[in-house]
Amino acid sequence: MAAKRFYTLSASCPDQIGIIARVAGFIAGHGGWILESSYHADAGDDDDLGSKDTGSGGRYFMRMQVKADSLPFHLAEFRERFRPLAEELSMIWRISDSAVKRRVVILVSTQEHCLYDLLARWQSRELDIEIPCVVSNHDTFKSFVEWHGIPFHHVPVPADNKPAAFAEIARLYDEVRGDTMVLARYMQILPADFCARYSGEIINIHHSFLPSFVGARPYHQAYRRGVKLIGATCHYVTADLDQGPIIEQDVIRIDHSDSIDDMVRYGKDIEKAVLARGLRYHLEDRVLVHANKTVIFR
Amino acid sequence: MAAKRFYTLSASCPDQIGIIARVAGFIAGHGGWILESSYHADAGDDDDLGSKDTGSGGRYFMRMQVKADSLPFHLAEFRERFRPLAEELSMIWRISDSAVKRRVVILVSTQEHCLYDLLARWQSRELDIEIPCVVSNHDTFKSFVEWHGIPFHHVPVPADNKPAAFAEIARLYDEVRGDTMVLARYMQILPADFCARYSGEIINIHHSFLPSFVGARPYHQAYRRGVKLIGATCHYVTADLDQGPIIEQDVIRIDHSDSIDDMVRYGKDIEKAVLARGLRYHLEDRVLVHANKTVIFR
Amino acid sequence: MAAKRFYTLSASCPDQIGIIARVAGFIAGHGGWILESSYHADAGDDDDLGSKDTGSGGRYFMRMQVKADSLPFHLAEFRERFRPLAEELSMIWRISDSAVKRRVVILVSTQEHCLYDLLARWQSRELDIEIPCVVSNHDTFKSFVEWHGIPFHHVPVPADNKPAAFAEIARLYDEVRGDTMVLARYMQILPADFCARYSGEIINIHHSFLPSFVGARPYHQAYRRGVKLIGATCHYVTADLDQGPIIEQDVIRIDHSDSIDDMVRYGKDIEKAVLARGLRYHLEDRVLVHANKTVIFR
Amino acid sequence: MAAKRFYTLSASCPDQIGIIARVAGFIAGHGGWILESSYHADAGDDDDLGSKDTGSGGRYFMRMQVKADSLPFHLAEFRERFRPLAEELSMIWRISDSAVKRRVVILVSTQEHCLYDLLARWQSRELDIEIPCVVSNHDTFKSFVEWHGIPFHHVPVPADNKPAAFAEIARLYDEVRGDTMVLARYMQILPADFCARYSGEIINIHHSFLPSFVGARPYHQAYRRGVKLIGATCHYVTADLDQGPIIEQDVIRIDHSDSIDDMVRYGKDIEKAVLARGLRYHLEDRVLVHANKTVIFR
Repeated sequence: MAAKRFYTLSASCPDQIGIIARVAGFIAGHGGWILESSYHADAGDDDDLGSKDTGSGGRYFMRMQVKADSLPFHLAEFRERFRPLAEELSMIWRISDSAVKRRVVILVSTQEHCLYDLLARWQSRELDIEIPCVVSNHDTFKSFVEWHGIPFHHVPVPADNKPAAFAEIARLYDEVRGDTMVLARYMQILPADFCARYSGEIINIHHSFLPSFVGARPYHQAYRRGVKLIGATCHYVTADLDQGPIIEQDVIRIDHSDSIDDMVRYGKDIEKAVLARGLRYHLEDRVLVHANKTVIFR
Repeated sequence: MAAKRFYTLSASCPDQIGIIARVAGFIAGHGGWILESSYHADAGDDDDLGSKDTGSGGRYFMRMQVKADSLPFHLAEFRERFRPLAEELSMIWRISDSAVKRRVVILVSTQEHCLYDLLARWQSRELDIEIPCVVSNHDTFKSFVEWHGIPFHHVPVPADNKPAAFAEIARLYDEVRGDTMVLARYMQILPADFCARYSGEIINIHHSFLPSFVGARPYHQAYRRGVKLIGATCHYVTADLDQGPIIEQDVIRIDHSDSIDDMVRYGKDIEKAVLARGLRYHLEDRVLVHANKTVIFR
Repeated sequence: MAAKRFYTLSASCPDQIGIIARVAGFIAGHGGWILESSYHADAGDDDDLGSKDTGSGGRYFMRMQVKADSLPFHLAEFRERFRPLAEELSMIWRISDSAVKRRVVILVSTQEHCLYDLLARWQSRELDIEIPCVVSNHDTFKSFVEWHGIPFHHVPVPADNKPAAFAEIARLYDEVRGDTMVLARYMQILPADFCARYSGEIINIHHSFLPSFVGARPYHQAYRRGVKLIGATCHYVTADLDQGPIIEQDVIRIDHSDSIDDMVRYGKDIEKAVLARGLRYHLEDRVLVHANKTVIFR
Repeated sequence: MAAKRFYTLSASCPDQIGIIARVAGFIAGHGGWILESSYHADAGDDDDLGSKDTGSGGRYFMRMQVKADSLPFHLAEFRERFRPLAEELSMIWRISDSAVKRRVVILVSTQEHCLYDLLARWQSRELDIEIPCVVSNHDTFKSFVEWHGIPFHHVPVPADNKPAAFAEIARLYDEVRGDTMVLARYMQILPADFCARYSGEIINIHHSFLPSFVGARPYHQAYRRGVKLIGATCHYVTADLDQGPIIEQDVIRIDHSDSIDDMVRYGKDIEKAVLARGLRYHLEDRVLVHANKTVIFR
């Protein structure tokens, strides 16, 4: 992958005839080589069972990877030249450059599995990102993180002064110019204004198959209900706890012989796999959000 | 399987030292050959994380298949001789005979997939049961069912006289000495007294991964929430809608491109597989219910 | 679905700059509304790990669903007008019409599960196809098939005269103008010339997770090897037994307590689900074959 | 778990009437509290479809966890007292003590994912084991391992002197009194005599769903064959490459858009999950091997 630099254009807009033709035509007109492209039309009516005309109120989603050196200009000019078409189509859009590493700040508490997993993927360049720092409300992983050459910030979150703690986290995140915040089993509820300020940038891993078992101690809830599968959900954080757009989910089979401890253990494996997949989709601009749902161009 | 007749003893009782030794000792004392056996101890405290003594309030579950011709007596005498030990251990227990086919009444509305699936399994003797009749609130499948040589009863369920309809269904079920009732996508809510009367005998397939999406139109609910997996749940019917003990569950992956129609279609495959597995566990006395949960000795 | 008529264009061609722009431009130029579209570029070098220029030897695959009444012409003219562009791009291509039902001939032996499953899907119009006839080397399902109003042909396949039997099957298939042949657990090896004649039209369900356990009695092979999952594979039939392009696969977990009988039973559920999914992909022109592999535009 | 000390008795023997009664009777006779127990009878004939008498050649498997302080003696005496019964039943057996940590030596090359994963589980005591040392044919992970306080041995394996290298590995393993060796993506083929010497103690993770894609570069093989799922297999190492008894397997779905790089990446997630589950089964004496297959008392 590393050797092939590309730009990723991801966008959504009201549906109409000719969108692909115009966007692909724009790219081809400049000699651009499309490496990968995905499109999706959403009829915009969730009671529609597929039989109605999509012309009214539908939304169109797209993602294209264009080989960088096939274009006669650089990123800034690409954006500038694309802007008029994007505006004409009323697009929400972005173009990113595979040569610019995303800057991911990890928040963690005292559970190690997601942190180890993310650092292993970073170490091997499977996740080709910058991790400018790790923030925690505990100092459990200070030396482990620092061994990796990554700064570690211990920001306690006292019950009587959460705003100050999150102001500090915001300051650290802004200071390092983070573009993504990963809650790697960070056991604090984020303030609503914090969620709003970084909307679309904060990714959480919830230890249940949402919408089952919202809130605290989902494995205990699952144990009590006697479910036969447990799961995990990677989602964007919004002010509504555990209600944000779902990016990725998965489950694993359990049975009556599994204790809550066993469920926690099985759950960790699902959590880290689901978080890693969801984070990757996000980092590669494969996730487009609309109406509290996600389109994932896997 | 057919050639090897066996008795199945399934039981639960308060946990104490020596249960297996006494029950297995009883069987061995009569020369009984145990083909298959399973045991489970439940600590009886769902907040217990495995560290406490199980002596207080635990419950013990067991299931044994004993080769019929290895015992020097028949079923009735087996039960008679086992009774004193069962009472001493305060057991809830049953002994069934593999040579006696279970009598399963199927209730269906207008969706064909579970009905076809069950009849195919019955036809091939994969499900080695009697189906004394099929009951429906529609006559859609009358000729299909009758082609199989199975009586079909059309019992409409008018909104203004549900009690009479369910009285008739009870009469039909009792008349054929049914021992299990399968709701194969039967789209009627059963009256509470009906549920109570046939407690532990009625199996439903719900078209969601419970406890997500209780109630009506779960695929519409799932579509709206944007989940990445959909599922189905086979459970015993109780007076609390969709709250009965869960027997079996499974899921299948979907994505943003799947319409509600697609989800319904994928869902059907999960529904029939989950119903068939759950029904088999029930028919083979592999399901023991306790505290609204199931032990499944798969 | 039924209410929305569309044309499906599926094609592959040597990769080059501007393919999407030209094809989507052609559609948009006639006012065509693209309901769904998928594209894939294959670098054409399976040792390539993603880093090489795709310009050399790559192949491009695409599929578009165009709303029929958005175009100012009918199918024949659509094809005629598209042909010059297709030739210029050296495409292998087809355009099909959702209003024309595919004609699927089912071949079956004595196992019922796939047959029941396909007929249930046909009955409910989940599979919106014609089944002009069912052909079998046994007469087991004659009356069941005929009850559905579908002609049934018993064509025995004597060991000493297979060519005549397959000549008769070819005659029946041609007579009804079949376009797809489904081997629904048809337990005969097809002659090489028969496979060649109907290349790309014959779909088989193999009862193992290929390439494991090629050939006869795969569940016995799986039992002996002690695998922990068993599977099924839906693939196109070629002259090389069990070596054709794979369309769909799935697996299910088993354990040491499962006998071969149990594996056969679990396997049936996977077989019918996998066959149904694979067949649907084929019927909706979602499968493009290249170099003994498939692109599936799910 | 930590607070509840128990002994684990695992055993297999020729099948006969009364085994459970005698073993459970022995335990109960000393006041032993059985926390968990599992039994399995194998008919011993893989062509048997369940209908034959199991009396001829069958083998019986069992595993019991007995609460340590419920017995009036310690481990050595438990073994001594159990020995006569074990001999009478011709058992292969062992009794282990949950208070004695297993000593697991990890062998690794240059891929980090399994190593990080195992150390994270060890760190959190999810895997409650000793890791007396890590051995590698490269020095890539020296400082990472040592940071954890675990000795690291760099043992190069020159092509022209493998015997000396493996003699050194054997010496290190024996010196630390290892009881399990984990090949955490250790990219060297072990000499036959080494496999024989530590038979049943060496666990490998193979990066394919065996028996598919034996040998080198399984993801390349899978890519070429066009499979729709890839997997991993945890197995005991024997002198026959990739042919040892399978402990655990799992798969993950891929599609045509996944490059070999993507497959490697997805595969890593399966590999570490499967290895961790398989290793746990082994460490908890849940695996009984017979005839190159495993019974897993999960």
